[in-house]
Amino acid sequence: MLATLEARPTDLLDVRLPGEAGSKAWRDVAERARARGVRVHGLEDAPARTAERERAGGRAGAEADIRPRQAEPLASLFARASGGDRWIALDGVQDPHNVGAIFRTAAFFGVRGIVTTADRAAPLTAVVYDVASGGVEAVPHAIETNLRRALDAAKAAGVWVLGTSEHAVKPLGEMPRDRPWLIVLGNEETGLRRLVLESCDEVCAVPPKGSVVTSLNVSVAAGILLATLAG
Amino acid sequence: MLATLEARPTDLLDVRLPGEAGSKAWRDVAERARARGVRVHGLEDAPARTAERERAGGRAGAEADIRPRQAEPLASLFARASGGDRWIALDGVQDPHNVGAIFRTAAFFGVRGIVTTADRAAPLTAVVYDVASGGVEAVPHAIETNLRRALDAAKAAGVWVLGTSEHAVKPLGEMPRDRPWLIVLGNEETGLRRLVLESCDEVCAVPPKGSVVTSLNVSVAAGILLATLAG
Repeated sequence: MLATLEARPTDLLDVRLPGEAGSKAWRDVAERARARGVRVHGLEDAPARTAERERAGGRAGAEADIRPRQAEPLASLFARASGGDRWIALDGVQDPHNVGAIFRTAAFFGVRGIVTTADRAAPLTAVVYDVASGGVEAVPHAIETNLRRALDAAKAAGVWVLGTSEHAVKPLGEMPRDRPWLIVLGNEETGLRRLVLESCDEVCAVPPKGSVVTSLNVSVAAGILLATLAG
Repeated sequence: MLATLEARPTDLLDVRLPGEAGSKAWRDVAERARARGVRVHGLEDAPARTAERERAGGRAGAEADIRPRQAEPLASLFARASGGDRWIALDGVQDPHNVGAIFRTAAFFGVRGIVTTADRAAPLTAVVYDVASGGVEAVPHAIETNLRRALDAAKAAGVWVLGTSEHAVKPLGEMPRDRPWLIVLGNEETGLRRLVLESCDEVCAVPPKGSVVTSLNVSVAAGILLATLAG
């Protein structure tokens, strides 16, 4: 909500602060929101919703209605690609917690954009926004029907496409850091589709050290890739 | 379940396979389980439970009753510490998804043990086992009432204690990789407690590149720490 207030205040429709929120932090938020023309009131104005959240075990935090961030056209996502730039493409990542965590990590590492697909993927729901902790505001995204066409657009803009697979032969550590990379992450169970794999310039694996568990959660893998390539 | 079948078959009490499971993979599991004296039957024997899972949107997978893995004494966890060894301590990590993901990542990187606390932390529930994908079987754990005492035990065994904080001055990249490290991860909201921070030999941060999102999910941070220190 704070990230939306900064980035695009006109898409913040309504802010509800907790009843006991007499703290300076909350008063600041209310003041900044009102200064931008956003309606602000106490959570007590929405008792049904508060009761529902409490039944669900939620804490008393602020709530807001936010107009979802608009998707960008692909071309603007890949404009002016240079050396250390990073993008992420999601090939059918299903779990909204994973998608949200990937947006959060992407924002942390200054990723320039995330490409996701209209089908076979978690839509950018409230869960994604929540888990992303501001990441959906910080990182532009594009939603494509054909992921391969998006990879081709990236290549045409001078971006290299890096697939990830636990079956890949090359370790992540061998990938050069000075290229602009689009990192492609696959579905939680099935990984990257064959045709997507074939579109990649390189495919790498994070090498396991143990023998029982040989795959990582996709959002953890995203963090390791971005951190290692940031080096 | 497969990891339990390998590691400690006598703690696998009951295995239920999906009704349609005529595949070779499931027949193999059933055969291996029966050979170890585990009761195996079809999921159709438990219709109420199956219906419940279907209502919850679950897929038809195998189910099993598993006796939880026993905690280890601290002394055995830190026995024979040497160079590249890693351990993890959790200072009040609350979300069972995070604890499960940390066990999975720890197993992936061959971590020697995880110390958690009896209070203020997610217990090792079925969610943790599920998200860990075999990680709880692969990584021994100890449950301590006093985390600082556990850190002292690690130090006495020759292990260095590495705290993590987004406010730390030293970047992760400066930490030497040739030491045996116990990595301490804090609560999702509040991080490490002050007294725990003071017990650390070093405290480091993963340096953010963006400005909107300046903190990582704790399980993503765990992955980045383990991958970077594995080098």
